Amino acid sequence: MSFEVGAPTPMVLMLRPRSGYGQWVAREEYLLSPHVPVTEYTDNHGNLCQRLVAPEGEFSVRATATVETADMIDESPGAQFVLPAELPDYALQFLLPSRYCQSDLLGQTAIEIIGDAAPGYDQVEKIRSWIYDNLKYEYGTSNASTSAVETMQSRVGVCRDFTHLGLALCRAINIPARMVVGYLHDLKPMDLHAWFEAFVGWRWHTFDSTDEKTLGNRITIAYGRDAADVALTTQFGPAILKEMQVWVNAA
Amino acid sequence: MSFEVGAPTPMVLMLRPRSGYGQWVAREEYLLSPHVPVTEYTDNHGNLCQRLVAPEGEFSVRATATVETADMIDESPGAQFVLPAELPDYALQFLLPSRYCQSDLLGQTAIEIIGDAAPGYDQVEKIRSWIYDNLKYEYGTSNASTSAVETMQSRVGVCRDFTHLGLALCRAINIPARMVVGYLHDLKPMDLHAWFEAFVGWRWHTFDSTDEKTLGNRITIAYGRDAADVALTTQFGPAILKEMQVWVNAA
Amino acid sequence: MSFEVGAPTPMVLMLRPRSGYGQWVAREEYLLSPHVPVTEYTDNHGNLCQRLVAPEGEFSVRATATVETADMIDESPGAQFVLPAELPDYALQFLLPSRYCQSDLLGQTAIEIIGDAAPGYDQVEKIRSWIYDNLKYEYGTSNASTSAVETMQSRVGVCRDFTHLGLALCRAINIPARMVVGYLHDLKPMDLHAWFEAFVGWRWHTFDSTDEKTLGNRITIAYGRDAADVALTTQFGPAILKEMQVWVNAA
Amino acid sequence: MSFEVGAPTPMVLMLRPRSGYGQWVAREEYLLSPHVPVTEYTDNHGNLCQRLVAPEGEFSVRATATVETADMIDESPGAQFVLPAELPDYALQFLLPSRYCQSDLLGQTAIEIIGDAAPGYDQVEKIRSWIYDNLKYEYGTSNASTSAVETMQSRVGVCRDFTHLGLALCRAINIPARMVVGYLHDLKPMDLHAWFEAFVGWRWHTFDSTDEKTLGNRITIAYGRDAADVALTTQFGPAILKEMQVWVNAA
Repeated sequence: MSFEVGAPTPMVLMLRPRSGYGQWVAREEYLLSPHVPVTEYTDNHGNLCQRLVAPEGEFSVRATATVETADMIDESPGAQFVLPAELPDYALQFLLPSRYCQSDLLGQTAIEIIGDAAPGYDQVEKIRSWIYDNLKYEYGTSNASTSAVETMQSRVGVCRDFTHLGLALCRAINIPARMVVGYLHDLKPMDLHAWFEAFVGWRWHTFDSTDEKTLGNRITIAYGRDAADVALTTQFGPAILKEMQVWVNAA
Repeated sequence: MSFEVGAPTPMVLMLRPRSGYGQWVAREEYLLSPHVPVTEYTDNHGNLCQRLVAPEGEFSVRATATVETADMIDESPGAQFVLPAELPDYALQFLLPSRYCQSDLLGQTAIEIIGDAAPGYDQVEKIRSWIYDNLKYEYGTSNASTSAVETMQSRVGVCRDFTHLGLALCRAINIPARMVVGYLHDLKPMDLHAWFEAFVGWRWHTFDSTDEKTLGNRITIAYGRDAADVALTTQFGPAILKEMQVWVNAA
Repeated sequence: MSFEVGAPTPMVLMLRPRSGYGQWVAREEYLLSPHVPVTEYTDNHGNLCQRLVAPEGEFSVRATATVETADMIDESPGAQFVLPAELPDYALQFLLPSRYCQSDLLGQTAIEIIGDAAPGYDQVEKIRSWIYDNLKYEYGTSNASTSAVETMQSRVGVCRDFTHLGLALCRAINIPARMVVGYLHDLKPMDLHAWFEAFVGWRWHTFDSTDEKTLGNRITIAYGRDAADVALTTQFGPAILKEMQVWVNAA
Repeated sequence: MSFEVGAPTPMVLMLRPRSGYGQWVAREEYLLSPHVPVTEYTDNHGNLCQRLVAPEGEFSVRATATVETADMIDESPGAQFVLPAELPDYALQFLLPSRYCQSDLLGQTAIEIIGDAAPGYDQVEKIRSWIYDNLKYEYGTSNASTSAVETMQSRVGVCRDFTHLGLALCRAINIPARMVVGYLHDLKPMDLHAWFEAFVGWRWHTFDSTDEKTLGNRITIAYGRDAADVALTTQFGPAILKEMQVWVNAA
């Protein structure tokens, strides 16, 4: 990422992937040019957040990682719905509506979409494939304030919008769902990507509604309720993102 | 609170106030009838949350507390705006838009309202008094899905709506703001109440836009980003709230 | 508790029991006389800690609670040893040696005591009963700096010492063990009490080595690694504890 | 590090430095050979901990990092003692005695050592230089169970022992002190190193009692109460560390 900074600008970046279930960060490089003092903290979702003040002029950030990850996702048809009374405390917050996922408004829609799918994984998969089948992927049709309700009406958007709709529909049927931002190998055109995880069968499962099926080779950068939580850069001042390039290569 | 429960219903309650800055819980009573097993956890905002399964039939919850609190809020005209670069990590999340507080859509509105008030406390006070002066307090004009943007248009609502608008406007000008639910002495008619706190002058300050000025004698039950985080009861099943009574007496 | 305070003295108190697994705080009262400002925070073990400055002169603290708890502990002979690789992250810290529990020095001793008991609950029960059978309960034989190694040699002590030895022996065989301070109904003479919990069969189980068998009717006030973590009062200055009385009555 | 593993052995490693105040991890590489599944969690002190099961046979771990750090520590003679009542909640735990730092037994010793130094930084510096002046650095004189009280008597040890004594003496005079393990440039012979930080003047300051003065160019790997918390490898089974090499080069 390369910024043109008009005046010293505080920023919060989330560009350091964490090792975790199914993901091992083997190599990582995170360069700031020019280098400035940075502090790092862990937010409510366990993401590592970097705080700095971008100096006036050109400021570039280059984050590279080599990550061990699975070639295929772990599909689990039949994984059961977890009763709300038995959810881990941590998962409860992912049942709540959020800025871009008004699950409180989409109950009836969700019920129609899931039909008679078995409670749990199969319902989420039905939501995922319904979105893929019924929405059109098109750049320039949505913006930073577009929410799931709007996307449900317009039936068009990008990965962020598809994800918000998936999140809202899962929560509407009491399945905890969280947003993931990160990278997907072979995405075309290559860019940052967003998808979601749903808590069924007593663990989180990966779902991506932008493709015919959910592929593997994913790198998670950050988790959150929706895009408000997982902005990879948040800035407080006159910095203009001039260029952003993303490469994902298989090692 | 008294519920008519059609079938065993998981619930999450937030009815145990915590001692904290300016609030001391001297006595507390929390009775369930019939008594059922409960676990308690602490959420992201430090609230104590009680998890239980309400049994079929009549189920009542009675929470009583005697709390030491200040007669007057600590007004601090002139308390300064804290630069985003200097905010404590914890406060950053309260700059983000949330389900009912689309701060990302209200930037221009906020700028018009604050006018030339000094950055910080005075801006928040201007937002607070503008809401009091320009909105009409009226029951039945909003519902559980009403958001700040809708309230800004309709100019009518209850304490929850007034608070959501205050939160959204503060965040729109980069002042961290969090929702508070609790009790206010002498509120008429007596009910649960909601207000907000803004982080200026390096600490949280209390603001209530439902009255001419922000009075003291408040008891905080829970903090959160907005009403999604601080529902005092969340239920997953067929329980009907039959009756809820609130009393607040000065000791 | 009643203190004679020579000069204003900062204190950290841990006198507010929390609701949790098998324990429900139905009523609670916490009075300071004279009343002073207090803040409360949650420590690493989830204990609620009250911070205040005791004023010069007489200062008394009175904490009362009505707690729902089980008449009997949940004995689970045969509950299995949990492999270290499968322990929850949270339990790992309770494998480490601590100030009063030098588990690193007691490996051989532990192995001799457990003999051929089945790995898990039965080993812990063997440690518990060995301590009861081989140590003498006697006031005035130990002090605030007595550790498990010393107690193993002297074979004498009070509940705190018995507990430290139980903790150290469990950790020496890779069973996570944590200290509990609280109240036990019908303890004679009535006083604060200490016991321990061990993590076997995928959850925490209660053990008390000061009696022939582990009785029920316990109220937990605080958890920690050992007595260093769970001092109910820590003071930084010239306050003298003049009187402390404990009552536990069945409701 | 290279291990000879007799049977599959669960391990907890702490080998990933975190970015933080005065330290920026620009590049990092963490290779396991053979590669095995790993999960990572954050402990009570914010350290990133890697959990894995080392497979039978040869197992090697190679962690490399390029870290931006200061050439010199930030000496602050005169930085003031922080009253216990004003310490941040987080620092309180670092006043407690711990496995290797029996601060409760060293009060009188600490008072004699600090003499009439000004409360705060100057007292800690006096403790640090007293240890350097009065202890002999010698390998093979202490072991994994040696504590501060023993080191005070023997007056001999290695960096770990010097650090434990510094920690215990600081806590004995109510100054929060935490252990640091990491790397120091130009240490001879090169090895892992340990030192301590004390909380005075409202922030943590670096002290190293193994040299005439506290040098810069340090990389922090982990923080904790004492060596029990910051073992870079903890293993539960028959793995033998065959070789460990440490290189630190200036970039």
